[in-house]
Amino acid sequence: VAALPLLLHQYIVNQPHHPGVVSPDQQRHACAPQPGTSGAAARAPSTGKPSFTNAFDIRSVGCSGDPTMFEAFWRETGDAAELVIPGWQTMSYFSDVGNVCWFMEPLFDQQVRRLHRTVGNAAVDGYHVLVGTGSTQLFMAALYALSPADADQPTSVVSTAPYYSSYPAVTDFLRSGLFRWAGDANSFVGDSYIELVCSPNNPDGAIRDAVLSSGAGKAVHDLAYYWPQYTPITRRADHDIMLFTVSKSTGHAGTRIGWALVKDREVARRMTKFVELNTIGVSKDSQLRAAKVLGAVSDGYDVGGGGASRHRLFDFGRRKMVERWRMLREAAAASGAFSLPAETSGQCNFANETAANNPAFAWLRCDREDVEDCAGFLRGHKILTRSGNQFGADPRYVRVSMLDRDDAYDIFISRLASLK
Amino acid sequence: VAALPLLLHQYIVNQPHHPGVVSPDQQRHACAPQPGTSGAAARAPSTGKPSFTNAFDIRSVGCSGDPTMFEAFWRETGDAAELVIPGWQTMSYFSDVGNVCWFMEPLFDQQVRRLHRTVGNAAVDGYHVLVGTGSTQLFMAALYALSPADADQPTSVVSTAPYYSSYPAVTDFLRSGLFRWAGDANSFVGDSYIELVCSPNNPDGAIRDAVLSSGAGKAVHDLAYYWPQYTPITRRADHDIMLFTVSKSTGHAGTRIGWALVKDREVARRMTKFVELNTIGVSKDSQLRAAKVLGAVSDGYDVGGGGASRHRLFDFGRRKMVERWRMLREAAAASGAFSLPAETSGQCNFANETAANNPAFAWLRCDREDVEDCAGFLRGHKILTRSGNQFGADPRYVRVSMLDRDDAYDIFISRLASLK
Repeated sequence: VAALPLLLHQYIVNQPHHPGVVSPDQQRHACAPQPGTSGAAARAPSTGKPSFTNAFDIRSVGCSGDPTMFEAFWRETGDAAELVIPGWQTMSYFSDVGNVCWFMEPLFDQQVRRLHRTVGNAAVDGYHVLVGTGSTQLFMAALYALSPADADQPTSVVSTAPYYSSYPAVTDFLRSGLFRWAGDANSFVGDSYIELVCSPNNPDGAIRDAVLSSGAGKAVHDLAYYWPQYTPITRRADHDIMLFTVSKSTGHAGTRIGWALVKDREVARRMTKFVELNTIGVSKDSQLRAAKVLGAVSDGYDVGGGGASRHRLFDFGRRKMVERWRMLREAAAASGAFSLPAETSGQCNFANETAANNPAFAWLRCDREDVEDCAGFLRGHKILTRSGNQFGADPRYVRVSMLDRDDAYDIFISRLASLK
Repeated sequence: VAALPLLLHQYIVNQPHHPGVVSPDQQRHACAPQPGTSGAAARAPSTGKPSFTNAFDIRSVGCSGDPTMFEAFWRETGDAAELVIPGWQTMSYFSDVGNVCWFMEPLFDQQVRRLHRTVGNAAVDGYHVLVGTGSTQLFMAALYALSPADADQPTSVVSTAPYYSSYPAVTDFLRSGLFRWAGDANSFVGDSYIELVCSPNNPDGAIRDAVLSSGAGKAVHDLAYYWPQYTPITRRADHDIMLFTVSKSTGHAGTRIGWALVKDREVARRMTKFVELNTIGVSKDSQLRAAKVLGAVSDGYDVGGGGASRHRLFDFGRRKMVERWRMLREAAAASGAFSLPAETSGQCNFANETAANNPAFAWLRCDREDVEDCAGFLRGHKILTRSGNQFGADPRYVRVSMLDRDDAYDIFISRLASLK
């Protein structure tokens, strides 16, 4: 869930080399449009945004939370994560009719549990695993499951600011009578609510706990970033509802697979019902691909099983994140115009060493007195960010993705360092 | 959209060979549970419901609209529809940043247009193609796109009875303030509405046109069954919004891919926005699989391109449907207790011959004076159906799937023929 990169209404593309009229929706989505590859002429699977060809590329950078940083890792692993699907396979709606989540592939369930046991970041024994079309769908499913169907008023949905900008958008876009966005959890008054707890938090990387507690209140823990590449694994989380996604754990955003770990069977049943009504289940192809990919990650650390390999995703990811955060802190220091959250660290039970928190997003503050709109200021220098006011925070702050490909990240860093 | 097989609250499984407590959700989904294959022990992709082993199998039949009939075809085609996905492929959220539907794989767009040109069932020139997680998601997207965001009251959603039972359920489950189910189109009074036109109609196979017409009203045409295996292709449909799905065209229900053909760019943009907010796009893996499968279907008829093969999906499908309808009409006649819609036919521009309408569902009426609840009566004889009252119709009617595997269909026929 903590992944939605697209509600980027403030993103404007500046493309003097590619004139022509750019429509509003192209402006919104085209972080870096790819001239000439649109439409029916294509003969190959898509590649997302194009690579930057040199340091003088005038296209904008910094856009979206697209986790393409991980592509380099998966190119190295060869066919360990390759999936072959025969034409006749998994044609049925049904995957596992004895499971609460009847449309979930047993292989996916199995590899989700295995990876959590390998990493130690979440409890799985006694939990139902549910699969969703990305964790965004399971976020909506949780709101549906936790809102009393017979209530007079919609249930209030809250989260501590700065909160992920998609929470209010996804909660309210259908104007549901079941649930309604109610803003910052810290200013909420009442007994009945759903509190969204994102930890590490999108946008600022903070480690969080629920701030509200009442008998009638419920919490949904969005743990999309609770993986060793981003943060020390300090405890095995065991909340009632925990959301995860391959987008941020392995980088496979295009696969649109998320999962929930749910304690209560009735909540699991109602969440499943949501997915049934919304999309009649979840792509089997992507479930099988996710199972393959998650399995390849676990294999990398399977010392006991003899399968441990030199392809270790979390080692790759942590190395990259440490390096990128070092570059970013140096660039901010060179500029002098920006500040970043202080670095924190903790004992990582997975890596068995002290590790820093290296968030997937940078929560950057512009310290210049003459700049009140940091996103606008950066946009003027071809750095695309999401403004703090989208997260219920001060527009002197912006969120910047740390997960882009190397070429784009390097250009972002050099542009930032040059700003005074 | 006309595919949702799972809102089957009336389906009860009778399993004296498999005692143990069956929970309500298992009862609902377990049309034919598969003992011993549930959970994490599985080592292979799922196969849906298990095959029947002999004619004396005591499990129930007739359940759901699962299109597993088509598996036999795809097993015959060999690797023509096999998909290989390397671990590093399509990891980005983005597929085609210049397209309104920025998350759609260009290969999918291309093969959708090619198949419609091959079959002649729908116009594609001047249309936007949009991809969805099944056509159910695009059905919701259409309601979202066509409902004015600033209206005081939810827009009324209507369809002529008998209407697909999922229309009211999917329209109302989130209690949206944007749209609300308003029942049978024939009794609707007002100017502002969204009319759902399913043709051939689920459940009764009727060829339909919109019954309402006003300047402020909108229509959504659900053409899930407008393919040569089910009905003669009498014209190239060119409505404002047309919905299709691989579930019913090729039988790949588990792939969860539907598409919309949309004339108006702003409607296409808003439908895309719905999918963005709901699931941040659609599985690339399944889009690529659908492109492969649709391409294999077109290849079968590509005489000009020299690629025409002996594997022709619509020939297979029509042969099966003709045979199954013959068997069903004979069984109903043998029984004497049931009647079926009269057979209709027309000139099929695709097959270039007169062809009968062979719907994907049988709309069966029980003519026995002592039976008011046909679904309950059949359930007592281990035939699972959906009651007419789910479709806004008389409970003397039931809907029965015509798309199950041969073994299950044969048992259904023999059980039906024996009822007096």
